[in-house]
Amino acid sequence: MKCFLRVASLMVVGFAMSVFQLHADEGMWLFSNPPKQRIKEKYGFDVTEDWLNRVRLSSVRFNSGGSGSFVSPNGLVMTNHHVGADDLQKLSDEKNDYLKIGFHARTLAEEKPCKGLELNVLINIKDVTADVNAAVKDGMKPEEASAARRKVIGEIEKGAANEKASVRADVVTLYAGGAYHLYTFKKYTDIRLVFAPEQQIAFFGGDPDNFEYPRFDLDICFFRVYENNKPVDTSNAYLPWSPNGAKEGELTFVSGHPGRTNRQNTIAELEYLRDYQYPYVLSRLNRLEVLYSSWGERTEENRRRIKDDLFGVQNSRKARVGGLGGLLDPVLFARKVEEEKRLVDFCKKNPDDADCKAALAGLETITKAEKIRREIAQSMNFYENGIGFNSATYGIAKTLLRASEELPKPSGERLREFGEARLPSLEFQLFSDEEIYEDVEILKLTDSLTLLSTTYGANHELTKKVLAGKSPKARAFELISGSKLRDPKVRKEMYKGGKEALDKAKDPLVELAKLVDADARKFRKQFENEVEEPKRQAAAAIAKVRFKLDGTNTYPDATFTLRLSYGPVKGYKENGKEVAPFTNFEGLYARSKEHDDKPPFDLPKRWKEKKDKLDLKTPFNFVSTADIIGGNSGSPVINAKGEVIGIIFDGNIQSLVLDFIYDDTESRAVSVDSRGIIEALEKVYEAKELVNELRGKKK
Amino acid sequence: MKCFLRVASLMVVGFAMSVFQLHADEGMWLFSNPPKQRIKEKYGFDVTEDWLNRVRLSSVRFNSGGSGSFVSPNGLVMTNHHVGADDLQKLSDEKNDYLKIGFHARTLAEEKPCKGLELNVLINIKDVTADVNAAVKDGMKPEEASAARRKVIGEIEKGAANEKASVRADVVTLYAGGAYHLYTFKKYTDIRLVFAPEQQIAFFGGDPDNFEYPRFDLDICFFRVYENNKPVDTSNAYLPWSPNGAKEGELTFVSGHPGRTNRQNTIAELEYLRDYQYPYVLSRLNRLEVLYSSWGERTEENRRRIKDDLFGVQNSRKARVGGLGGLLDPVLFARKVEEEKRLVDFCKKNPDDADCKAALAGLETITKAEKIRREIAQSMNFYENGIGFNSATYGIAKTLLRASEELPKPSGERLREFGEARLPSLEFQLFSDEEIYEDVEILKLTDSLTLLSTTYGANHELTKKVLAGKSPKARAFELISGSKLRDPKVRKEMYKGGKEALDKAKDPLVELAKLVDADARKFRKQFENEVEEPKRQAAAAIAKVRFKLDGTNTYPDATFTLRLSYGPVKGYKENGKEVAPFTNFEGLYARSKEHDDKPPFDLPKRWKEKKDKLDLKTPFNFVSTADIIGGNSGSPVINAKGEVIGIIFDGNIQSLVLDFIYDDTESRAVSVDSRGIIEALEKVYEAKELVNELRGKKK
Repeated sequence: MKCFLRVASLMVVGFAMSVFQLHADEGMWLFSNPPKQRIKEKYGFDVTEDWLNRVRLSSVRFNSGGSGSFVSPNGLVMTNHHVGADDLQKLSDEKNDYLKIGFHARTLAEEKPCKGLELNVLINIKDVTADVNAAVKDGMKPEEASAARRKVIGEIEKGAANEKASVRADVVTLYAGGAYHLYTFKKYTDIRLVFAPEQQIAFFGGDPDNFEYPRFDLDICFFRVYENNKPVDTSNAYLPWSPNGAKEGELTFVSGHPGRTNRQNTIAELEYLRDYQYPYVLSRLNRLEVLYSSWGERTEENRRRIKDDLFGVQNSRKARVGGLGGLLDPVLFARKVEEEKRLVDFCKKNPDDADCKAALAGLETITKAEKIRREIAQSMNFYENGIGFNSATYGIAKTLLRASEELPKPSGERLREFGEARLPSLEFQLFSDEEIYEDVEILKLTDSLTLLSTTYGANHELTKKVLAGKSPKARAFELISGSKLRDPKVRKEMYKGGKEALDKAKDPLVELAKLVDADARKFRKQFENEVEEPKRQAAAAIAKVRFKLDGTNTYPDATFTLRLSYGPVKGYKENGKEVAPFTNFEGLYARSKEHDDKPPFDLPKRWKEKKDKLDLKTPFNFVSTADIIGGNSGSPVINAKGEVIGIIFDGNIQSLVLDFIYDDTESRAVSVDSRGIIEALEKVYEAKELVNELRGKKK
Repeated sequence: MKCFLRVASLMVVGFAMSVFQLHADEGMWLFSNPPKQRIKEKYGFDVTEDWLNRVRLSSVRFNSGGSGSFVSPNGLVMTNHHVGADDLQKLSDEKNDYLKIGFHARTLAEEKPCKGLELNVLINIKDVTADVNAAVKDGMKPEEASAARRKVIGEIEKGAANEKASVRADVVTLYAGGAYHLYTFKKYTDIRLVFAPEQQIAFFGGDPDNFEYPRFDLDICFFRVYENNKPVDTSNAYLPWSPNGAKEGELTFVSGHPGRTNRQNTIAELEYLRDYQYPYVLSRLNRLEVLYSSWGERTEENRRRIKDDLFGVQNSRKARVGGLGGLLDPVLFARKVEEEKRLVDFCKKNPDDADCKAALAGLETITKAEKIRREIAQSMNFYENGIGFNSATYGIAKTLLRASEELPKPSGERLREFGEARLPSLEFQLFSDEEIYEDVEILKLTDSLTLLSTTYGANHELTKKVLAGKSPKARAFELISGSKLRDPKVRKEMYKGGKEALDKAKDPLVELAKLVDADARKFRKQFENEVEEPKRQAAAAIAKVRFKLDGTNTYPDATFTLRLSYGPVKGYKENGKEVAPFTNFEGLYARSKEHDDKPPFDLPKRWKEKKDKLDLKTPFNFVSTADIIGGNSGSPVINAKGEVIGIIFDGNIQSLVLDFIYDDTESRAVSVDSRGIIEALEKVYEAKELVNELRGKKK
């Protein structure tokens, strides 16, 4: 606290400039530090400890990457269909594709146990900053400090965990090292599938509607948590179902696990993203999207083979378009500039403060690092990241080549991804028997060799070496058709056989990897030493002063730990037109009809049959201004009474800028409405048991 | 001929290097200079003058840009559906969309007269090189020479034309000025529509199959030429229908009007295209394709509004991918390098020859010009071509602004496009009442302002000036929604009102155009003076030496005048797989079924109903190695007997490189088979009158 007090006295000097300007309902707040006063002042609502505790204990983290909540006393968990998708896939077989057709267990006996799914509930938060900092002594070198910190954190975690009681303990680094909190979780591993709708309705509108609003998606999925083969008792830790849902303008809360934000990025970093990286990545995604979709349109088999690649590219493209749109908004960017100026001004007024000196130096370090990053970006992309050799087989070839060189070394001296601890997952991927299609590989490699040729120029040594006197198309065909690496057995043999086996096989793709690997390693080393590591250290120095300035008056960047966001249900104006906050079932049917019920706007059979039963005016999806990001998928939306009024499943495209800065002009969190959920479960799925459970009626 | 003789004696010096290497069945030959000997040697077939004359007089040029042929003694002309598409559109009304539903006149009375369609038949060719050259005296300055040449050409054309006899005369510049031929055409203007199938089957497979093979398209359309209100008598100038079609390996001829090739491009020009322009344009096309298609997928109304833009972009993209693929083929490129080396070597051996000096200087001039072109490409694109302001309304604003400045000047001093002669077409476009959609405009402008911002960087003066403190999206909305230029009446008023009216209106898009127009004019001037004009003069100097070297031993670049190409029906190998030369109706139905009869693979109703009647083994489309390019659409494919065996309608994607160099490894011309045409007309359309006419049976 010493630092903080000292900061407080300094703040008097430049008060006007040093108040951190929270924008409207900004913030992914720690449950241990919610913005009670702001909420009280703006909404007249008291966030009590009881309220907080109940919400926290009802909130669930999916280790597969997502959020959820207990919505009944009997361990019933609600999340998004797209959070549960992995498990739906795993539970499916040739006869039943639950991802596609949905699933419904009317009794406990019918519920299907999931494999490898772990759910966490945050049961305790303890500030261990002092303990962690105490382990780091003055005068330690950075590596020593880092090692000492890792050591003490390991000890704290070990002391708090309890395997028998299924208690997991993580020390979470907050405010980029400004604080360390010990998070203790109750860990659940017996999770069973209860209900999932058809993917058609969960992801109605597919890519065209992804990141858009208005929306019409029933993106929900229910699981049940078991312990000792019985549903876990959550009577004291669940969110009751709101009978009325939310009204326009009503205050709502979101309790979930935002994965990662970059709101501490410096202006140099944001400029790099805005002026180089986003445009560059977008141009590549556009290229791949056109490549994949035009090839997919040629035949149905092509479409099937390229579908996942295409969706991945479209999803990333939309995210980037949204993020770039925000970064290019001069008003938003000026806020970021102002924020950095506040830090610089503060430091300039305290020129003798060692932390301030380090922070100013850190800003310069990052600016310099971003310059180097820009200079070597193309080399990193083509040599180390292999974007000129876009194909699964090239990735395999490179892994085999490096494995043959790295594995003979001691674990600590290997490239990161070949460390002992990571080998199982590397091998799992490498030996996967997922089919690799020759035609898809040729398609991708032809295009990426073309990209390499035009980026470096046809006369460049790299291009000549790689093409070996052939056109990109002829060379891609030669490389792919001549390679044996699509066969997992061959991969296994080569991996086990090491360098000798590899040299003997002379697989054309391994030979290609050999051509560039020395340079690839060189650029990677340069990147790690001149960009990654200096930036890491500089960021820590800057964070330290930021913490001096604002301490816990604000929220830390997202860390995939539990956070509370809030904001009203609220529409917005886009291109001069009002976008209403709610949609309803009438809109769903209209949207499907408008597209002649063609994919991805086709409705599941039962949705067509049961249309007459539905009250078409029932609210289906809605938007609010809550501050969310990836990882919040499946988060419950809660009213002031602590009741479920919806579930987050997306952000609109304008919300993608929330990675860097909060804004509520057009950015919105998108949710399924609790009333739409009940209406659909009752009328379309006739899931009366589930509805009764949600409504809290005894069976 | 003096020059040519002198070249011949010089050729002895470096014989081995100076023989022009024609590649296989290369060439778009002049009818006055066909490769008789080559054909005789390779195929044992004598191309006689009678044969040539008949084919020439049966060949028809569409002034709308395409080819065709007389296929009956009664003036029946066959061309492609996509060549006739403009006319089908013009003949359509709200009740009958002939482009979509097709058209069929069973009697002469039912045939529908077309508006503004002109057909030309080449009736005479005369070499006027000596006359043209005689007008250009030694010692004239380039401008004087150019004026003298224009004058004498005008006189020659005037002397040969005969408006009454509908004879049109054009002096055609061949071999880039190596020769001038007077082409006399019979001109027909009473053209009536006879038959067109549904666009669905004419362009079956749409964009996914465009430029691809195998193919299944009935891309045909029949017109009839009238004179004095009667079908013209073509009994001595038509191509009889082959009863048997073509066999694999059989020699075929194509008589048509290739529009433009660039085979004389220097290596510096090809490198500019390969290393900069094609990749650059492709990245822009990819970007627009993703933008348009993702927006189009949102609603059916969006799809309708963006459809034409999207198809245009897809079509261009495919063409560029094909062309770039060829340019990146080191083997093909080496042939171009070899060709240029032959010229340079020849010139170096004749260092005192004035033409050789000029040609060597010309090569350097072009290299220098391409460098400047590269340097100012971005400025030209953004300032003069306005790609950062992609929207119909910006184009209108710019035209209005420039018109207000240019029109007060004398015609000769104006920017080219505002010359008196061009004004009618400029005004026609400017005042067109075709609807301009506000949402499409905002979409395009948002994206292109984003492109401008990321190309120049958000901190660049241009970006700041253009965005005026707003995000690309907000600025695009403000500009488009605030502009009145979507209303043709407003445009007319502003155009007529000149500078004063424009200044007074303060339309936001005109104000935007004002911000960049001074710079735009500056870059355009630089481009014209330092790139365009020097290149034009240099190309003429180089062409002169090329003509010295090869004279008429080869064919000139395409000029949208009649040419003869030839080559066998022949499949090819792609990615190791054989592509058979013929497709049939069975393949058509299979392809439609594979796509569940979904657009663009849906079949017209009558094609489903009449399936049983068809002999499904009938050949439908086929490929040959003939040397073709855009403008050849609708060209008859002819056998040695001079009979129609098919009609050209496309080239595969590999053929796009034919712009620069001929190759027959994978490049193919794609045709509809004469047998498929008859079978479809007879069984699907029950067009017995038309079939009888084609078969030469008396009615």
